[in-house]
Amino acid sequence: MTTIKLIGATGYGGLGMIEILLRHPELELTALAATQDIGKPISHVWPYLEGFCDLPILDADSPEFACAPADVTVASTPDGVGQVRAPGELAAGRKFLDYSGDFRFNSPELYAEYANRLGKDPDHKSPDLLPEAVYGLSELHRDEIASARLVGNPGCFAVSCILGLAPAVKNGLVETAGIVCDCKSGISGAGKKPSVGHHYPERYDNMGAYRLTGHQHVMEIERELSLAAGEDVRVTFTPQVVPMSRGIMSCLYGRLPAGVNGATIVECYRDTYKNDRFILVKDAKQPASTSDVRGSNRCLLTVAADERTGLFRVISHIDNLVKGQAGSAVQNLNIMFGYPEDMGLDYPGAHP
Amino acid sequence: MTTIKLIGATGYGGLGMIEILLRHPELELTALAATQDIGKPISHVWPYLEGFCDLPILDADSPEFACAPADVTVASTPDGVGQVRAPGELAAGRKFLDYSGDFRFNSPELYAEYANRLGKDPDHKSPDLLPEAVYGLSELHRDEIASARLVGNPGCFAVSCILGLAPAVKNGLVETAGIVCDCKSGISGAGKKPSVGHHYPERYDNMGAYRLTGHQHVMEIERELSLAAGEDVRVTFTPQVVPMSRGIMSCLYGRLPAGVNGATIVECYRDTYKNDRFILVKDAKQPASTSDVRGSNRCLLTVAADERTGLFRVISHIDNLVKGQAGSAVQNLNIMFGYPEDMGLDYPGAHP
Amino acid sequence: MTTIKLIGATGYGGLGMIEILLRHPELELTALAATQDIGKPISHVWPYLEGFCDLPILDADSPEFACAPADVTVASTPDGVGQVRAPGELAAGRKFLDYSGDFRFNSPELYAEYANRLGKDPDHKSPDLLPEAVYGLSELHRDEIASARLVGNPGCFAVSCILGLAPAVKNGLVETAGIVCDCKSGISGAGKKPSVGHHYPERYDNMGAYRLTGHQHVMEIERELSLAAGEDVRVTFTPQVVPMSRGIMSCLYGRLPAGVNGATIVECYRDTYKNDRFILVKDAKQPASTSDVRGSNRCLLTVAADERTGLFRVISHIDNLVKGQAGSAVQNLNIMFGYPEDMGLDYPGAHP
Amino acid sequence: MTTIKLIGATGYGGLGMIEILLRHPELELTALAATQDIGKPISHVWPYLEGFCDLPILDADSPEFACAPADVTVASTPDGVGQVRAPGELAAGRKFLDYSGDFRFNSPELYAEYANRLGKDPDHKSPDLLPEAVYGLSELHRDEIASARLVGNPGCFAVSCILGLAPAVKNGLVETAGIVCDCKSGISGAGKKPSVGHHYPERYDNMGAYRLTGHQHVMEIERELSLAAGEDVRVTFTPQVVPMSRGIMSCLYGRLPAGVNGATIVECYRDTYKNDRFILVKDAKQPASTSDVRGSNRCLLTVAADERTGLFRVISHIDNLVKGQAGSAVQNLNIMFGYPEDMGLDYPGAHP
Repeated sequence: MTTIKLIGATGYGGLGMIEILLRHPELELTALAATQDIGKPISHVWPYLEGFCDLPILDADSPEFACAPADVTVASTPDGVGQVRAPGELAAGRKFLDYSGDFRFNSPELYAEYANRLGKDPDHKSPDLLPEAVYGLSELHRDEIASARLVGNPGCFAVSCILGLAPAVKNGLVETAGIVCDCKSGISGAGKKPSVGHHYPERYDNMGAYRLTGHQHVMEIERELSLAAGEDVRVTFTPQVVPMSRGIMSCLYGRLPAGVNGATIVECYRDTYKNDRFILVKDAKQPASTSDVRGSNRCLLTVAADERTGLFRVISHIDNLVKGQAGSAVQNLNIMFGYPEDMGLDYPGAHP
Repeated sequence: MTTIKLIGATGYGGLGMIEILLRHPELELTALAATQDIGKPISHVWPYLEGFCDLPILDADSPEFACAPADVTVASTPDGVGQVRAPGELAAGRKFLDYSGDFRFNSPELYAEYANRLGKDPDHKSPDLLPEAVYGLSELHRDEIASARLVGNPGCFAVSCILGLAPAVKNGLVETAGIVCDCKSGISGAGKKPSVGHHYPERYDNMGAYRLTGHQHVMEIERELSLAAGEDVRVTFTPQVVPMSRGIMSCLYGRLPAGVNGATIVECYRDTYKNDRFILVKDAKQPASTSDVRGSNRCLLTVAADERTGLFRVISHIDNLVKGQAGSAVQNLNIMFGYPEDMGLDYPGAHP
Repeated sequence: MTTIKLIGATGYGGLGMIEILLRHPELELTALAATQDIGKPISHVWPYLEGFCDLPILDADSPEFACAPADVTVASTPDGVGQVRAPGELAAGRKFLDYSGDFRFNSPELYAEYANRLGKDPDHKSPDLLPEAVYGLSELHRDEIASARLVGNPGCFAVSCILGLAPAVKNGLVETAGIVCDCKSGISGAGKKPSVGHHYPERYDNMGAYRLTGHQHVMEIERELSLAAGEDVRVTFTPQVVPMSRGIMSCLYGRLPAGVNGATIVECYRDTYKNDRFILVKDAKQPASTSDVRGSNRCLLTVAADERTGLFRVISHIDNLVKGQAGSAVQNLNIMFGYPEDMGLDYPGAHP
Repeated sequence: MTTIKLIGATGYGGLGMIEILLRHPELELTALAATQDIGKPISHVWPYLEGFCDLPILDADSPEFACAPADVTVASTPDGVGQVRAPGELAAGRKFLDYSGDFRFNSPELYAEYANRLGKDPDHKSPDLLPEAVYGLSELHRDEIASARLVGNPGCFAVSCILGLAPAVKNGLVETAGIVCDCKSGISGAGKKPSVGHHYPERYDNMGAYRLTGHQHVMEIERELSLAAGEDVRVTFTPQVVPMSRGIMSCLYGRLPAGVNGATIVECYRDTYKNDRFILVKDAKQPASTSDVRGSNRCLLTVAADERTGLFRVISHIDNLVKGQAGSAVQNLNIMFGYPEDMGLDYPGAHP
């Protein structure tokens, strides 16, 4: 049994973890913290949890939260919170997993570049910890995660793009110049805070692109693809929002090198992911949509080439709140504490 | 361990059962049947199940299906199917649970009246079995279900209305004449078969009432309420469809007898359901919506009186595919086979 | 040609009026005011208007707005604004039409009761004007509107309920005690301001009731029905929100007096509304849904009785932003200035 | 005054034309035909039209339809119908405008290739007419349309892609090899016929790509771009469906030639379209979404370059049922009969 404290429990990322842990046989929540509604049971804020999880919401600075037993602390918080909390939690002998960009980069300079894109303070509060932080994309960094104290969970768009492109750039199946990531997301990816753009009457029957001049997830995509390729990779990234709650579909394009065709791509992807429980590889003739992964920790890759035009085309489907967030986090916790990687995650979502 | 065969596996009701059983520790699916895609794995038809449930779809008439070991057969099929299948399954020593109206009534005459409303053949094919059939609303018929061979699972609208009105009619908290059931449902209640009315462009941003001249669920509502009241009860029923997938909200109205007020109603409902794991009773000041029960086997009742006008008002919320269908079915199976009533069902849905 | 100044131009009610006036041959917008984005063209705030309406947003207190020529000022503003603006506009020789509750009541006492329900200041700022204010439901108050200086446009739920019930209470087709208004609305009725409850991920696939302890529209419904009935009428009102943008469906119930049946109700409604261009009366066998009125100034009434149970049942469908708001307002302006009542309004919406 | 007969009146494309013509001062509908519900008023099939358009549905083969006066016949029909009807209509001295692919190509060979992609009969029934057919994209073929007898209205995806790419390929702002059209559509683009994939419960909260091995609109996109470029252009086309009713957003990518940057692209597009009433050009810093064009005949182009990666990126937004279908058709009719190009089309849609 492994015990977990959760900071940022009342956001969608926190709820996702609570939902999974309620069914997980070995990971147990011991304390929740948030910044609002302190003292109330979480089921008061989210009535759907009533009778299933009624833990009180604590102040993360309170002695109660500090003293709650835990082997690991999870911060499902916006950028800037985990970097302040991590040193204390690590010093208390706990591991630390953070959902934000706080520990996705290994140097203060890269973090500063990331933070600037978000309009956040570029000075990292725990720069000494950055070198040991591990990027928590299980399929690519399983071994480092297993021994990590400190894990930075990946961004949701990044999960879809990296899983969809890494085998290709690593094996020379796509030219590294001119890659396009055309990425559509449901709205839960923007979190629970209301905004004009996500007000129901403004958002239904409406889609659009945003942050065309630079989305924060580009950096981790390019870093991971460059690592896989062994050379510098840059991508054009077009984040888009569609009127759905859950789901990311990323269409990934690039130029086919001479001699590469659809069959070689399918074969390479199937081989790369043959031991990965959560990756499904399909070819262009098999139908696929985000409902195939909704509510599950799956990433479904439709892998193809448009040989007529000489283009590489992979379509990556995930549930942004599961494989894109809480599911990946639990997968990482399983790895960090020696449980089977799919424990508590080996289930489909509910349809329809 | 109890083994289950499922007929009608590829409809929404069948999927709901498969999803629950995948996580249930004691109930195990051994065979699936449907009328289309025979021979293919169910995950071919529903790719979201790939790797989670890949059982082949069998012909219900095939020897393979007949010989599959099972303690109980579940028919998640339209009216008319279960009444043909039940005798053989019972003769083979299995229990039988049916989702349709085939076994909700205890006489051929009542069934004929029901079938006529649906435009179905009014001649029941197993009239001898009707007397022993038990109406599978666990909260009202727990003891009979425990010893039943043959259970007729209730209709989704009926679940919401009966749970919302039974304590009141039983305890004289509402006049039995003039009860109104104003019932709104998401579209999954209509099943997976496409129709003009549920084509996405016709259904989004659109709500309407239907079958104003007589919905088939009225009969079981009136039968159960009459049983609870000890006198004949008739209701005005207005079925409506709203642009959602999952959820039923039934607003239930009637006249307040002299001396009854909101507080007495709340107290009575809390007392009636105090041992029912899946019923939540709230008063009119507590916010409630169908998202509080989405994906769970809960029924949430907002219980109140409008004392200014002398009206009784209860609002009943369920997920039509869980408490309104597969969840109730598994709850019944738990009771029929001696497991804790909430086994495999004691979880919230996923939000948002 | 009649000229119009519009205060509160950037809300949904203001947009609705702009859209209609862009196609109206005789009513012309001369100036817009709002409290934000002053100085910018309205098409900067609402890009869909670019090239169609690019009038600058003015400060309602500015000399430019005061001096803009206008025969009438329309306040599409929250409660509390029109009552401050009206005296000046009337003094300048203009008529005044207000969307809020500010001029729906003819005494400070009634206004105070209304304002208290909304948690607003109960002291009306122009109590002297209340006696002359006319309730702007064209079908019931056509003659008074024609000669009015000051019109209070009705609430959206109220339009649906009053049009659906007035003929019945006036003609003794329903008992005046025990009337139920079960009212479902799309979300645009709540305006453009974002809130947690109307954040897309919280609102999609979710419905619920609210303000069960007293909605502000009940007062005007009861006042108008009492006027029609010639006796005091009270109603039980259940406001509900469903995941749509546009549309109200109100199911209206009551007890049938002896001797009244469905046919007499249909006949009475058809006769009552025979000269009303915007009212459609159908019987219970004719399908109806809010998409039949979406985008139009229609009110569609499905008129029936459930003779088996002795209940009266009318279902009223409107577009909350048209007949429930801007359409009714333009209909009133047409009447106030002597144009054909349907001028600029005689069109269906766009489907689907 | 110009008179119009409409074949295929009850589909979404027919409804779109009826809606526009109801407000058009010079184009008048004289007769409607469809294959079902013959003899009934169209408002029986589509009740939202009741009182606005109650023309009877005729059989296109009936004498009544043949004799109805008309200057032009519009076929809002699936592929294969217009090619049979056109000769008779032209022989009767009428012009002919067809919505399908029947007259988008000028040779039987090209038509056969197109029809094969759709699984339709590749033998064109009026091959002699193909040479004179004009492709009805007003902005590119205004002069030919003005003198045409026979116009093939463009496909909805094609409108978005061609308007978004033609200026670039014509002016050397993008390399002609390696162009990607990543195209998302609302569901109304698939027409009114129900299907499993567009059944509300299957389609809400779900997006996916389809026909990855060859969509029929690719051909007209490549033909028009090749004409504009003066060389052969091929594109990779990824059609996708998102849970909306109306709207197309096409993200168009390619490589930037040396010396081209964002500013030069914006300038070229603004100059190209400076006299086109329905084209809006914005840069990457200006927010844009499909709601900006919903219900209007606009095409909104967000024009940019990702100079960091050397990629050209244009995002094209239209309403698939207006600029993508009926709006373009009316724009063509205006041109064909000498009316101002924006007559009857110069209005925004309704928001929200």
